[in-house]
Amino acid sequence: MSFAEATSVTRGTTAPPPSHLERFDATITEGWDILGNANGGYVLATIARALSTALERPDPITITAHYLRPVSSGPAVIDVEKVREGRTLASATARLSRDGIALVEVLGAFGDLVPSGVVVDAPRLLRGAPPPLPPVEECVSMRSAAESPTQFSTKVDMRFHPEDLGFATGNPSGIPRMRGWFRLPDDEPLGTIGVLLAADAFPPTVFNASLPVAWAPTVELTVHVRARPARGWLRGTFETRFVTGGRLEVDGELWDETDELVAQSRQIALVPRPTP
Amino acid sequence: MSFAEATSVTRGTTAPPPSHLERFDATITEGWDILGNANGGYVLATIARALSTALERPDPITITAHYLRPVSSGPAVIDVEKVREGRTLASATARLSRDGIALVEVLGAFGDLVPSGVVVDAPRLLRGAPPPLPPVEECVSMRSAAESPTQFSTKVDMRFHPEDLGFATGNPSGIPRMRGWFRLPDDEPLGTIGVLLAADAFPPTVFNASLPVAWAPTVELTVHVRARPARGWLRGTFETRFVTGGRLEVDGELWDETDELVAQSRQIALVPRPTP
Repeated sequence: MSFAEATSVTRGTTAPPPSHLERFDATITEGWDILGNANGGYVLATIARALSTALERPDPITITAHYLRPVSSGPAVIDVEKVREGRTLASATARLSRDGIALVEVLGAFGDLVPSGVVVDAPRLLRGAPPPLPPVEECVSMRSAAESPTQFSTKVDMRFHPEDLGFATGNPSGIPRMRGWFRLPDDEPLGTIGVLLAADAFPPTVFNASLPVAWAPTVELTVHVRARPARGWLRGTFETRFVTGGRLEVDGELWDETDELVAQSRQIALVPRPTP
Repeated sequence: MSFAEATSVTRGTTAPPPSHLERFDATITEGWDILGNANGGYVLATIARALSTALERPDPITITAHYLRPVSSGPAVIDVEKVREGRTLASATARLSRDGIALVEVLGAFGDLVPSGVVVDAPRLLRGAPPPLPPVEECVSMRSAAESPTQFSTKVDMRFHPEDLGFATGNPSGIPRMRGWFRLPDDEPLGTIGVLLAADAFPPTVFNASLPVAWAPTVELTVHVRARPARGWLRGTFETRFVTGGRLEVDGELWDETDELVAQSRQIALVPRPTP
């Protein structure tokens, strides 16, 4: 099943929602999970499809998700409330729920993004560059690095910087950073909805820190999509600078093969104390 | 009028909202505006007071605002919808509107933050430090730097790095960055709600870029509050790395006098082409 199919939504035909909402039906597909919890980027992409459909705008410009509860596979509804429909941007909230329980709450602004490589008559400044990565064939897939790779690692085609996969064999680099190549299997076109998946597909940066942290559940994720990606690989870099007060942030950048900045992301995650 | 008074809200006593909402009345106070539009941090702080009251949690942990329309001074209502009330975090949406028109939409998670300086038994990592600033008395207030300072500059006590105020006299530094000291007049306690004001109080970074950009209206602002600030000055640094496709991001950090990271912020703003 393709990413496009796994994130598809249909306008709700079941019980009508309150009149200020538009309801969509979705299926959280098996295999897109890590230990039973659907990947946050995958769930966000699914919700973004409902928002894009309701707002009749193709591209998420800025989108924020609050992950309220773990999302297991199975049917779910997405209720969209339009907030503003302007010329440049249209904004809405969306709630993914099951059996009346809210699982993810989203706030997004959608519009029309410039395809990567198209020059627009606007001020431009790049004070950064794509992360330096070895060629794809010298990078490492999770399937070859981990002893028991997740099924999720078959849903995406990712090759990691060799320096950043030491955690998989018990040798973390000491730097809370993850860098690598990203695309969908069979080079399925990503589009800007797929960029949301890429923004939360890399392993937790903290796995490479020399800290007693076994997992880091995401509280909130915001993605700014800056351009429609060109075909081919994305290069991603995700980094944590501060682990304080039981929380950490992860800052991400995604670049396409034309060296265009495709997205920036930031999330805040909890740092549970390890169980003794 | 203090910041606390200017951001106060009361539970609504006027027309009842739909039953799934809690309504608060607020007044957008004159003088907190830039050219007639209320400062985004001030508006966010006001909305955060309503969220904090409804959720009965003191501190915003992560909060995202979408600025839909300019906010002028005068009365407004804030409708809060609780989404989840958990042990560690409680989440809700809030909409500030006037005459039935949504002006700002917010999604926030609230909880109890650790006061700055209190050591918690949790992993800790700092890969950054407060911005290097000259002493307060060697930094420059907007009132002394600008020919026609805004009334907003009297609502906050800010002293800027001398290198970053060149734009006020037509000599931008060339680096899209703003650094300086921040507190409220008369050293009014900031609290975590005041941190939201500080996260959007600095002049636009892009004023220091050598780009034809006269203003940059904020589309979205997310603030992660990381600790309750100690009394005294905050040090803030705000920086833009990418101006692409008619948008730019601003990344901010706020540190308190005990060298604790108090907040990280990121916003995406439009870069309108200058009018010829």
